[in-house]
Amino acid sequence: MSDILLSRTGSIATVTLSNPGKLNALDIAMWQKLATCFDALSADLSLRCVIVCGENGQFAAGADIEEFGTVRSTLEQGIRYHTVAIGAALAAINNCVHPVIAAIEGVCIGGGLEIACACDLRIASPAARFGIPINRLGFALAPGEMPALLQLVGRAAALEILLEGRVFDAAEAVQKGLLTRVAEDVPAAAQQSALRVAQGAPMAARLNKQLINRLSPVSQPLTAAEHDAAFAPLGSDDYREGVAAFLAKRTPVFTGK
Amino acid sequence: MSDILLSRTGSIATVTLSNPGKLNALDIAMWQKLATCFDALSADLSLRCVIVCGENGQFAAGADIEEFGTVRSTLEQGIRYHTVAIGAALAAINNCVHPVIAAIEGVCIGGGLEIACACDLRIASPAARFGIPINRLGFALAPGEMPALLQLVGRAAALEILLEGRVFDAAEAVQKGLLTRVAEDVPAAAQQSALRVAQGAPMAARLNKQLINRLSPVSQPLTAAEHDAAFAPLGSDDYREGVAAFLAKRTPVFTGK
Amino acid sequence: MSDILLSRTGSIATVTLSNPGKLNALDIAMWQKLATCFDALSADLSLRCVIVCGENGQFAAGADIEEFGTVRSTLEQGIRYHTVAIGAALAAINNCVHPVIAAIEGVCIGGGLEIACACDLRIASPAARFGIPINRLGFALAPGEMPALLQLVGRAAALEILLEGRVFDAAEAVQKGLLTRVAEDVPAAAQQSALRVAQGAPMAARLNKQLINRLSPVSQPLTAAEHDAAFAPLGSDDYREGVAAFLAKRTPVFTGK
Repeated sequence: MSDILLSRTGSIATVTLSNPGKLNALDIAMWQKLATCFDALSADLSLRCVIVCGENGQFAAGADIEEFGTVRSTLEQGIRYHTVAIGAALAAINNCVHPVIAAIEGVCIGGGLEIACACDLRIASPAARFGIPINRLGFALAPGEMPALLQLVGRAAALEILLEGRVFDAAEAVQKGLLTRVAEDVPAAAQQSALRVAQGAPMAARLNKQLINRLSPVSQPLTAAEHDAAFAPLGSDDYREGVAAFLAKRTPVFTGK
Repeated sequence: MSDILLSRTGSIATVTLSNPGKLNALDIAMWQKLATCFDALSADLSLRCVIVCGENGQFAAGADIEEFGTVRSTLEQGIRYHTVAIGAALAAINNCVHPVIAAIEGVCIGGGLEIACACDLRIASPAARFGIPINRLGFALAPGEMPALLQLVGRAAALEILLEGRVFDAAEAVQKGLLTRVAEDVPAAAQQSALRVAQGAPMAARLNKQLINRLSPVSQPLTAAEHDAAFAPLGSDDYREGVAAFLAKRTPVFTGK
Repeated sequence: MSDILLSRTGSIATVTLSNPGKLNALDIAMWQKLATCFDALSADLSLRCVIVCGENGQFAAGADIEEFGTVRSTLEQGIRYHTVAIGAALAAINNCVHPVIAAIEGVCIGGGLEIACACDLRIASPAARFGIPINRLGFALAPGEMPALLQLVGRAAALEILLEGRVFDAAEAVQKGLLTRVAEDVPAAAQQSALRVAQGAPMAARLNKQLINRLSPVSQPLTAAEHDAAFAPLGSDDYREGVAAFLAKRTPVFTGK
C-alpha cells in the first residue's frame, strides 16, 4: 500500500516515498501525508536536517495517473488537486525550517521532480532519470508549480523541459542546474551532506534558508523586525562558540542556543 | 536582395533570414517583415512549431550597419529603430503562441543573437560564433533589449559579453546558458526537436510557453481568469487521449482539440 | 599593517587588498577605505577599467574575525558593521561607473568572495579556494548581502554554499556561476581582460554596466529621461568613429567623447 515513511537518526530525519509496484508515484493520500509530515518535522527544533528519498532505488515517477479519471478530470477537480494536494505538499517542503536534501535514485519524473525541486539540495545517481513529459498527457505545468522550476533552472531550460517533454539523465540535469551534485552512492552522499549541514549552527542554517526564501526570486525590502531577526544570532551562545572555536582553531560544538 | 523567407512542411513552419553577401545582417525592412511574419504564424493554429534559421550556413551577423548613417544616427531615429524595427520583431517571436526553435549555423552576432534569444530553444553548430561586440561600435545594448539577455544568461554573463565585446564559440555559449544544445547537423537536430515538440499536445505547448512568459522573470499573481485558463486542458479531447494512451502504454494522437 | 593599496597604469587602476599575515582579511578600516577608494575611482572619468586583487597570491580570507569581539558582538554593532562597513564597500564597487575585474588567487572566502561578487568580471586561478563557511561561526549571511549572491549563482547554489559551508575549488566555482573564467596566470589574464574592456568605447561600457545594474534582478520600467540617456551615445564622436571604423574594417580609436 502507498505511504510516506518517516525515520530518524540523531538530528537527521528521513522521509521515504513509497508506492510499491508504481515507482513511488504519488496518489492524493501520499501528497497529503507528505504535507502533514513536513509540517510536523518543521515544528521539531531538535532536528537539524531532513533527507527525502524513495523506496527500492527509485525516487518517484510523478503523480499517480491511474487516479486522474476520478480525482483530476474537471476544472474544479484540477484546481483542487494542484492546490490542496500537490501545492500544499511542495509548500510544506519549501517552508520546512530545516534544510532538506533530496536523495535521488532511479526515476525522478513529473511530480517527483517537483518534490526534488522543492528541496534545498539535490544529490542524484548518474543513472537517475529526469523530466516533466506532461505534454504527452495533454496538459501544462500548473501555474502554482511553475515558479519553483523557473527559479531553479531558468526560463530557457524550463521551456526545453516542458516543450520537448524529454526524459534525460543526471549529467544533463546537472547542466540544466537541476542538481547539487551527482554521486555513485546516493544514500551515503546524502548522509554526508546532511552531517555537514548538521555540523553548522542550527540557527544559522534556518536563517539562511528563511532569508533565501524571503529574498528570492525577488528581493523585496525587509521590515525592521525581519532585519533585526536576521542579526539575532549575534546574541546566541552558538555565535560566541563559533568565533571562539575559529580563533582557537578547533571544531565548534553547537547547541542551537 | 534582402528578405525573410517562409516555408512550411506539415505543422512545422520555417522562417529563413536572408541577406546575401551580408551574412544575413538585418536591415529595417527585414526587421519589419520578421515581425509581420511571426504575427501571421502566431495566428495560424494549425501550426505546432516554428524554426528560425539563416541562409547559406549563417544565422545573422546582426543589424545592417551600412544603414546606420541614414536610419540610426540621431536620438529620435535610434529610439524609433530599436522600438519599431528591432523591438517589434523580437516581441513578435517571443509572443508567437507556438514554440520557436533557432537553428544556428555560422555567425550569430548582435541582432542575430538577440533573435536567437527571443526563441524558445536554440540549437547551434560547434562552429557557430556568438557575441554582442557593440562596445566596438560605440553604443550600449538598448534598454528594451537588455531584459531578454539578462533573463537568459544572468547578470554576470551579460556583463562579460557586453564589457569585453568578445566573439566566442558554441562551447562557451553553452557554458553561458545561451544554447539548448550543440549538434553537428543543425538542420536535422532542429527538425528532430520540432517533431518532438509537435508530438506533444498543442494546447499544452502553447500554455506552457504562455505561462513561462507570464511568470518570468517575475511571478506576478495570476488573475482568476488566467488561473482557470491554465487548467482548461482538463476539458480537452487531447487530455483524455493523453491519459488513455499513457495507461494503455501506447503513443497518443493529439488533434489540438 | 592592513591597507587598501591603489596604483594606476594608463587608463587601468588596480586596487590591492593587503593585510599581511592574515591572508588579507578585511578589518573595519579596510572596508571603509575600500569604499572611499572606489568612490574616488568612480569619479575619475579618465579611467576605463579597475582591477581588484589581493597581496601575496591571496585574494581575501574574509572579514577579520579577531575584531568581532569588539566590533560585532551586539545586534546594534552587527547592523552597523554590515551596513556602514561591508555594505558601503560592496555598494561602492557595484556602483563604480567603470567595469571592475576581480583577479583571484588563493583564498576567496566569506567577505572576500562577497567583494569578488560585487565586481563585474571574476578571473581566478585553478588553485583558488571559495566558500562562505559562516555556519561554522554561528551566523547567517546578512540580508543586505544575500541578493548579490542570489543574483550571481541563483537560489540552489546559494543554499548549497551557505547550508553546507564547504570550501571548494575554481572548477566548482565555475560550475556554480561564480567565475567569468579560470586562468593559470591570473594577473596576466586580468590585464588582458582590462585592456579588452578599455579598447571599447568608455561611454558604452559605463552605460552597459549602469543599465544592467538598473534592470537586474528585476526590470522596472525606465523613466523617459533614463530611456533617452540610454541612447545618448548616438550623439557621440565615439559612435561615429565606431561605425566608420567598422565600415572601413579598421580598429576604432575611442576618446570617451
